Amino acid sequence: MSYDDFIRFGRKTSTLASCGSVLGWDQETYMPKGGTEIRAQQLATIAGLVHRRVTSNEYKELLEAAEQAVADEEADSQRSANVREVRRRYDLDRKIPEELVVEITRTSTLARRVWVDARDSDDFPSFLPWLEKTVELARKKADYLGYDKQPYDALIDTYEQGETTESITNMFQPLREGLVDLLGRILASGRKVDTSLVRATYPIDTQKRIGRQAAEMIGFDFDRGRIDVTTHPFCSGAGPDDVRLTTRYSENFFNESFFGTLHEAGHGIYEQGLLMEHWGTPMGDAVSLGIHESQSRMWENLVGRSRGFWTHFFPTLKEAFPEALRNGDPEAFYRAINEVRPSRIRVEADEVTYNLHIFLRFELEQALINGELKPADVPGVWNETFRDYFQIEVGDDRHGCLQDIHWAMGGIGYFPTYSLGNLYASQLFAAATRDLGDLEAQFARGEFATLKGWLNEKIHREGSRLQPRRLVEAITGSAPSHEPLMQHLETKYGEIYGL
Amino acid sequence: MSYDDFIRFGRKTSTLASCGSVLGWDQETYMPKGGTEIRAQQLATIAGLVHRRVTSNEYKELLEAAEQAVADEEADSQRSANVREVRRRYDLDRKIPEELVVEITRTSTLARRVWVDARDSDDFPSFLPWLEKTVELARKKADYLGYDKQPYDALIDTYEQGETTESITNMFQPLREGLVDLLGRILASGRKVDTSLVRATYPIDTQKRIGRQAAEMIGFDFDRGRIDVTTHPFCSGAGPDDVRLTTRYSENFFNESFFGTLHEAGHGIYEQGLLMEHWGTPMGDAVSLGIHESQSRMWENLVGRSRGFWTHFFPTLKEAFPEALRNGDPEAFYRAINEVRPSRIRVEADEVTYNLHIFLRFELEQALINGELKPADVPGVWNETFRDYFQIEVGDDRHGCLQDIHWAMGGIGYFPTYSLGNLYASQLFAAATRDLGDLEAQFARGEFATLKGWLNEKIHREGSRLQPRRLVEAITGSAPSHEPLMQHLETKYGEIYGL
Repeated sequence: MSYDDFIRFGRKTSTLASCGSVLGWDQETYMPKGGTEIRAQQLATIAGLVHRRVTSNEYKELLEAAEQAVADEEADSQRSANVREVRRRYDLDRKIPEELVVEITRTSTLARRVWVDARDSDDFPSFLPWLEKTVELARKKADYLGYDKQPYDALIDTYEQGETTESITNMFQPLREGLVDLLGRILASGRKVDTSLVRATYPIDTQKRIGRQAAEMIGFDFDRGRIDVTTHPFCSGAGPDDVRLTTRYSENFFNESFFGTLHEAGHGIYEQGLLMEHWGTPMGDAVSLGIHESQSRMWENLVGRSRGFWTHFFPTLKEAFPEALRNGDPEAFYRAINEVRPSRIRVEADEVTYNLHIFLRFELEQALINGELKPADVPGVWNETFRDYFQIEVGDDRHGCLQDIHWAMGGIGYFPTYSLGNLYASQLFAAATRDLGDLEAQFARGEFATLKGWLNEKIHREGSRLQPRRLVEAITGSAPSHEPLMQHLETKYGEIYGL
Repeated sequence: MSYDDFIRFGRKTSTLASCGSVLGWDQETYMPKGGTEIRAQQLATIAGLVHRRVTSNEYKELLEAAEQAVADEEADSQRSANVREVRRRYDLDRKIPEELVVEITRTSTLARRVWVDARDSDDFPSFLPWLEKTVELARKKADYLGYDKQPYDALIDTYEQGETTESITNMFQPLREGLVDLLGRILASGRKVDTSLVRATYPIDTQKRIGRQAAEMIGFDFDRGRIDVTTHPFCSGAGPDDVRLTTRYSENFFNESFFGTLHEAGHGIYEQGLLMEHWGTPMGDAVSLGIHESQSRMWENLVGRSRGFWTHFFPTLKEAFPEALRNGDPEAFYRAINEVRPSRIRVEADEVTYNLHIFLRFELEQALINGELKPADVPGVWNETFRDYFQIEVGDDRHGCLQDIHWAMGGIGYFPTYSLGNLYASQLFAAATRDLGDLEAQFARGEFATLKGWLNEKIHREGSRLQPRRLVEAITGSAPSHEPLMQHLETKYGEIYGL
């Protein structure tokens, strides 16, 4: 048994798992509606075979042999990283009994169905038993995984390896104070942004063409990827050479599809930037959800919502939408896309208020998992906390605690990675500016390849060689912090709102 | 170990194989072109895992237990048929080493890509190494499978169980004589069919709508299926509730997409007619390629190219294409779609010349596998044989030996099933007429459900209960023969060409 045998075994498992990924994409895009039952069986079969392989004694023996083979190598070498990551995942996978895995899968499949109806009919009570079950299972999972301080830590670690409630709170706490303060000053400024430009009529066929053009312009490679339409946008695929984005269109609101497309293209550029030679090994895997989100948010916000971007792209847009933009200029458009306005729906939030949506969920999740908050009390606490943060009323649960799919999917501990992504994005972007000079000036000239090349080199091709926190430190020279994000927001919105 | 354990194991394997089927569909429809290498690995992984399961000792033991469990049942019972078929396939699968399966899968995935480019640029030499490899692998496979008389027999048997070069030649030989004679009389008749009606301009968007409408009309269920565009039309999917057709459009030729769609819908109606309760067992599998083709050719030719069909559907078509059909009537249209004219492309051939295209391939394949013909000599021999049959020149390989995907897919031995399908189709249609009365009169009234119901009952829901030859005998009362097909063609084309 050699290191190569170990890699071969793992790669075969990943290849099998990647088949499930394509089937999942197909389910959301093109599968006929009658195909659900067959698809469920296909996905369960693949998941079962994958689970059996990753927890097998054969893999354990290969892993032990590989650990011996790399024992004398540097801890951060590619081979050591592959072995370290597989060990970490193997130990986690072995801690959770198969019955629990099956029960979690079953519950989330059923809960998801109930959630869709509950959200549509604003009926929290019908979802409540499923939320209770989900919390209970998540808590059980945390107990199996183990933790030092609190069970929520164990869940966070499955989404953003190495982070804990405490480490995240240390970043979120000052960010929250800064954001609440900034939002207060913005609202008190009395200045209103005119959003009529982005609320005009944008024919969908042209949006499709323009979205594709923009994704291509920032570096998404359509020879190795594609874009389709789904109810909920996502990025998935089979590997670096086959990456699939989705988006959704709103004829009367420009932002929805365009920035959604840039966002997913950001994820896609990361996936395409992973090296094929490492495909199917941790060195070929994206390192974490937080880092993934840093890439999507960077292209969406720090690039796509920048003045430089629109200096370059506005003429193209105006040509594409002569009606909607008849009276527009780049500056007015820049302001329109950057309106700050407290709203109830997370995915529609602007850069300033977005993270407040996350903090609310982060707090509630901790309380749920620690048993301090009963699922039945979620709507009340949600609405109260929301009022504190945003000074607006939620009104109903559809626009409140029922809006997101994550809890229905069993994804407790997932939300914080969104804000980590925002925070990493600004920190990484500041480092890119340090290395590459004035990026906005480059965007204004239509140059995006320099930034993309830097991300390819510093982040994408590194795969999972370093843990997320260490990766950020290695690139930026400092530990992850809220400061670059606050600086970015203060500068940008201070100018827009004349603070 | 029970019969149910045996079924469960086999169903899981089939479920896994069905994942490969969806991935194959995706490869032809939506996969970005860069995804080929990953896709090859995915398909090879699934094929390898499937092969390992179907040749495993575990399966062997389950099979032996199942054989004991059904030992006292009738030979044609559903359970006996499942056991018999698995035994047959198991014995075949055990003969082929896994390395060869993986190599064949990988080669065909890559060869397909090369073939697409080679055909586009009329570049046989670039495809030649892949053809050589394909022939070599097919020959190896034949040697592993074993045969009585010649290696080609072993390949035929994998596509049309129970048939041999000799049994097929016994049917094809008199058919060829009859067709050459009929074609000679048609060409000598001096009567020309006016095809201007089908060679008019048919806007593609409307073709899409009409093709879909026609497929639905004859009984294809779009809640459990879909249709897309590919270079080479096909029907695949995941199971009865998820069936996928493809077609291609020509703006200046009505027949291509319309009859292609009816053809694939015929395959699709068969797949949708298999019973979900038997999904993943031989009782839920189509029995053979020949029987499959009998369904597609029946809906394409015996239904879609009948006078009755157009009596009903022509008004709808005229409304959809008022320009193209301004001066048309059902009778002129019926003649236009049924023009007999020797041409270079198999899939565009009329009912009379179609089988001659197959006989050419059948002869070349025998020579290739027996080593009498070198792959490098295929273009020359193709063109020469073609001239003999059709009295026209091929001109280039795009319209000659590069036109079909089959060899690129490793499908040597597949072509004869097309003519078997034609021959079965006429024989089955005659039996349906015997049972159901004047079918054309029903088509003229827009009634297609009676024929579909008969096919569902007699063929589709039978799955693989009877071997193909026995199925035809059971339904029609006679062994497969060329006679019903020749009778159909003599009657139909005798009338059109006034013979």
